[in-house]
Amino acid sequence: MARNASLSGFPEWLPQERLVEQHVLDTLRRTFELHGFSSIETRAVETVGQLLRKGEIDKEVYALSRLQDDDGNAASAAKDDPNQLALHFDLTVPFARYVVENAGYLSFPFRRYQIQKVWRGERPQEGRAREFTQADIDVVADGELPFRYDVELALVIAEALSALPIPAFKLRINNRKLAEGFYRGIGLSDTAGVLRSIDKLEKIGAAAVAGLLKSELGATDEQAEKALALASIRTEDTSFVEQVRALGITDELMEEGLNELEQVVAAAVKSAPGSVVADLSIARGLDYYTGTVYETVLVGHEQLGSICSGGRYDALASKGNRKFPGVGLSIGVTRLVSRILSQEFATASRSVPTAVLVTLADEDSWSAAQDVAGALRARGISTEVAAKADKFGKQIKYADKRGIPYVWFTDDDGAHQVKDIRSGEQDEADPAAWMPPAADLKPAIIVA
Amino acid sequence: MARNASLSGFPEWLPQERLVEQHVLDTLRRTFELHGFSSIETRAVETVGQLLRKGEIDKEVYALSRLQDDDGNAASAAKDDPNQLALHFDLTVPFARYVVENAGYLSFPFRRYQIQKVWRGERPQEGRAREFTQADIDVVADGELPFRYDVELALVIAEALSALPIPAFKLRINNRKLAEGFYRGIGLSDTAGVLRSIDKLEKIGAAAVAGLLKSELGATDEQAEKALALASIRTEDTSFVEQVRALGITDELMEEGLNELEQVVAAAVKSAPGSVVADLSIARGLDYYTGTVYETVLVGHEQLGSICSGGRYDALASKGNRKFPGVGLSIGVTRLVSRILSQEFATASRSVPTAVLVTLADEDSWSAAQDVAGALRARGISTEVAAKADKFGKQIKYADKRGIPYVWFTDDDGAHQVKDIRSGEQDEADPAAWMPPAADLKPAIIVA
Repeated sequence: MARNASLSGFPEWLPQERLVEQHVLDTLRRTFELHGFSSIETRAVETVGQLLRKGEIDKEVYALSRLQDDDGNAASAAKDDPNQLALHFDLTVPFARYVVENAGYLSFPFRRYQIQKVWRGERPQEGRAREFTQADIDVVADGELPFRYDVELALVIAEALSALPIPAFKLRINNRKLAEGFYRGIGLSDTAGVLRSIDKLEKIGAAAVAGLLKSELGATDEQAEKALALASIRTEDTSFVEQVRALGITDELMEEGLNELEQVVAAAVKSAPGSVVADLSIARGLDYYTGTVYETVLVGHEQLGSICSGGRYDALASKGNRKFPGVGLSIGVTRLVSRILSQEFATASRSVPTAVLVTLADEDSWSAAQDVAGALRARGISTEVAAKADKFGKQIKYADKRGIPYVWFTDDDGAHQVKDIRSGEQDEADPAAWMPPAADLKPAIIVA
Repeated sequence: MARNASLSGFPEWLPQERLVEQHVLDTLRRTFELHGFSSIETRAVETVGQLLRKGEIDKEVYALSRLQDDDGNAASAAKDDPNQLALHFDLTVPFARYVVENAGYLSFPFRRYQIQKVWRGERPQEGRAREFTQADIDVVADGELPFRYDVELALVIAEALSALPIPAFKLRINNRKLAEGFYRGIGLSDTAGVLRSIDKLEKIGAAAVAGLLKSELGATDEQAEKALALASIRTEDTSFVEQVRALGITDELMEEGLNELEQVVAAAVKSAPGSVVADLSIARGLDYYTGTVYETVLVGHEQLGSICSGGRYDALASKGNRKFPGVGLSIGVTRLVSRILSQEFATASRSVPTAVLVTLADEDSWSAAQDVAGALRARGISTEVAAKADKFGKQIKYADKRGIPYVWFTDDDGAHQVKDIRSGEQDEADPAAWMPPAADLKPAIIVA
């Protein structure tokens, strides 16, 4: 793991590391499918017009151009052309487009998961790559999406993260309605402005945020103090409700938000006790959420940033008068896998899928060895056949170097033996019946 | 399937179609792993210097540029800068780079599979997309790669393709040494030029190829005739050896190629009778193969082009004096899946992974319904819980529209019943023990 990516910001894994990543991806897929989410993939490219629909993000986007056009001329990206193609920088914008384009073919509410690479032309740093994999789940409705999905998605994500070889995590949940209603209730009408300032709390501290609220939004000392008091509330149960009420503000939208957050937190705490916090400082910055917001940190690795974020949109997408509200979360798979590998939270027990190497006594026995291998594979045992009838010592070394646990011998009379090269134990075996212990069948992921 | 991609050349699947694609990908992964191939992925981008290493392909390449650079200026791709980034157009060039970069961390011979998207800025047409998925297997050695891997890879690919829901295929195999030795033997020394002409046989016909050989390579009538005679040999067994000998040419390299091709074809025919042809017209155009070459067509769909091609490279990559010879094949997954879907060779039995919908008798029962769902999921049963206590008819309709086969009812006394909504049959059931029939557990892929 001392290796550096040969291109900064574009990590690549060795085979043994890739097994850990595959374990993470397989676990997420299994969890999402167990909860009834359908897989989709979208193309890697969108038009710049689509990508910029939700605001100014163009610094991060990689535009595409043919190296030569059909006439052999060098082509260049046309930044101002909305049809210019660029790589997607998340999976939410492409999903919104997919929903609108395929609305006539989908059943709503539509539950989908999507695990793909995304690209951002940012300066690479720890936990931030230029190419990385995201795993998203969303539920989107045509018209109205029951609030209960906000609760359900918190449960699914907590279950998915709990199944991964990572340290304890904290799912921090807040509600935009609660915050916006509260700000309105204390007389601060530019609620988006307040959210933007509060979002800087962790970076610049309470005093600086109070300064911003006063200088930029014209807040009084008392208003700034109240806004900060709300943002300081953090509870691992639903007691935040009383703490908010104790601040003495009444507002209808705030009440709606309080009620929603209470439901999400109550259910999530029941399902994943100790992993859930109602954190009233969570604002999720520039994202266009309208209710529940989620983010997630690894305990002891908070500086890595959020490993799973999301929230509720009143209109993930729209098509004429039709609105498609949604709620979803996105897991930063590459960020997680990088940390799992660098901290050795998990390792693979061997570098290859192979459980058995069938050796060759002489060159003429290759075809018979293939038959043995075929019989083993028919029972799901990953098997290789030696490519040359080298001395047995050399063939065994081939297996040993790769962590292949068993080597197979067939003598001239067709008698079979299998040897566990770790223990040296060697026994007669039948190609049509022999099975390795379950733990040796596939590379195991060993959690530290 | 009447849908067109909203961006020409960038196909996207509906959830039910994606299930077919996932089936194909899972089948390939399982087959490759059973044969001991390790998974790797490489980054989507390479430098232009790397991509052009094997020749002139720059018309097809998508270059990348940040839409704005750090100073906010529009950036453009620099075609002549070898460090310019571009999307990879295949998985062989990236694999060669990966092997060189990581040679110190890999065990050779190194067997890897790699399933990823690639991009080509070509004019889209039937069977040719701008973004598509390839599934590659290669074995690469440090120094010398035993010839037997050429035989083995043919067997692995035949097994992988046989497991897919596609029509009969023909794996066409040839050997460059055989062809080059033969051309040399008849006095045509520009063997690459002859191969380029022979490669056009299917497109322009024998008379035109003879013309090319004479006009461009200075071949005599007799030489052109002999070259075409070789290219006309096609046998489903090893009888091609006699047919080549009957042409009366002797050449050492030709003998080596004959011997190699005989071994590959003999083993492949034994393993996949009826699916293998020694086809001495196969040249694989501009690719830098040095021995065995493979390509594959679907019987009755020959106009789709090759769905799986590859061959042996004497130097897949090199690093100073070190050479890394390889042999590998690449399956065109998107080309295959497009055809499977358009011809309905296979369909998914339902559009969602969900096997059971747990209904709600009233709003208060949601938490208890989650407990039922959790118990079912613990046994691998994909389960959703209704989001609202609508009338049962409406909840059942939700399941019916998606093809979810079972709905679950819990009455006020906590008694459970499960109903098969296809047959209408309804029985008592225990959340801790009930299992659906195996055929209903997951969406099935139904082969036409």
